[in-house]
Amino acid sequence: MKKEDVQLCLVTDSEMCHGRDLAAIVAAAVKGGCTMVQLREKKADTRTFLSRAYEIKEVLKGTHVPLIINDRIDIALAADADGVHLGQSDMPVEVARKLLGKDKIIGWSVETMEDIEKANQMDIDYIGISPVFATSTKTDTAHPFGITGTRQAAAMSIHPTIGIGGIHRENAREVMECGIDGIAVVSEIMLAADPEQAAKELNKIINNNLPQTTQTTQTFFI
Amino acid sequence: MKKEDVQLCLVTDSEMCHGRDLAAIVAAAVKGGCTMVQLREKKADTRTFLSRAYEIKEVLKGTHVPLIINDRIDIALAADADGVHLGQSDMPVEVARKLLGKDKIIGWSVETMEDIEKANQMDIDYIGISPVFATSTKTDTAHPFGITGTRQAAAMSIHPTIGIGGIHRENAREVMECGIDGIAVVSEIMLAADPEQAAKELNKIINNNLPQTTQTTQTFFI
Repeated sequence: MKKEDVQLCLVTDSEMCHGRDLAAIVAAAVKGGCTMVQLREKKADTRTFLSRAYEIKEVLKGTHVPLIINDRIDIALAADADGVHLGQSDMPVEVARKLLGKDKIIGWSVETMEDIEKANQMDIDYIGISPVFATSTKTDTAHPFGITGTRQAAAMSIHPTIGIGGIHRENAREVMECGIDGIAVVSEIMLAADPEQAAKELNKIINNNLPQTTQTTQTFFI
Repeated sequence: MKKEDVQLCLVTDSEMCHGRDLAAIVAAAVKGGCTMVQLREKKADTRTFLSRAYEIKEVLKGTHVPLIINDRIDIALAADADGVHLGQSDMPVEVARKLLGKDKIIGWSVETMEDIEKANQMDIDYIGISPVFATSTKTDTAHPFGITGTRQAAAMSIHPTIGIGGIHRENAREVMECGIDGIAVVSEIMLAADPEQAAKELNKIINNNLPQTTQTTQTFFI
């Protein structure tokens, strides 16, 4: 996984489709600049989840945008997705790594500073700082990190960092300025009248506020 | 898998524990003669499901009673269970077989005679005839097979057959007389005041009414 892959992650929510086609929303979001898609299906049965995974994989074919499956290793394996995103009540990371092999992406949600210390010892590819702000999309989340906590989390993590929870166009700059590598959104794209445009606007804000962690040494040939 | 493994299958339901310990109920049921345990967790999160799978695997250690995981290939792989039981809305059998390999047990629920024809072409180890009778345990089930349908299903199937749905001590003999190889129960053991005794009584009925499909040729040495 490239670090740039975490810049703008769309986390799907079928219940926000309201009759619109999930695949079409994902395609529009990717066209607008989403760099990662996390398919999340908390209520679908296995067969439905799998068929959505196949469908979204088809949408992402040729785009180099990784498909990440929320929670379900079986779906990730069956659809040969690029990886999984695991929360605190999902499969433990070490078990997931064993089942998925070393090449798949594993993202892990951290909810406290202690989690970040743990994450730094883990064989994972990125962390989701969750939630940055309180949100109505997920009701089972921990105490929000807030701006100060997100800044501390970004500084502490040895892995690429994605902020998630309550992030939208109006606060995305402030969140990116915490030094995180990207943001994940659900409703900001899923519920947007124009998902492509929403992704474009978010993408612009992110690109203008990326952390300058790698100071490139400029060599001048005179 | 031996055909005898399907004789008495306990399908678990944590919600029926009512404060009792699931592992203790399973242990008692196995002591009473259960030959297969299917761990079913329709509401638990992945981490809870996995820890229950580890726990039940420990209970079954050394008993030769196979641990079958309902629906979730990831849990089966992570816990190295003996197999999975798949319904019509779970992972398709061919995908499951690919992920699990040839040595794991795959059971498949059939709901119609057409399903049995399909099942006969599938790489599975047994079928669950579901439901034999209407039941309150599962509310998403198809039209019951009934006694006549179960007899036809048993005759049609090339795989070992387990009847499930509404079976208890009072009707187990009638169901076994349909020519099936075993029965699966949920509440009859999960809710029993004495799960070991319930399993014992069911086991006795089953053993007295096993199909005589293999007519052994007796050779007399004079």
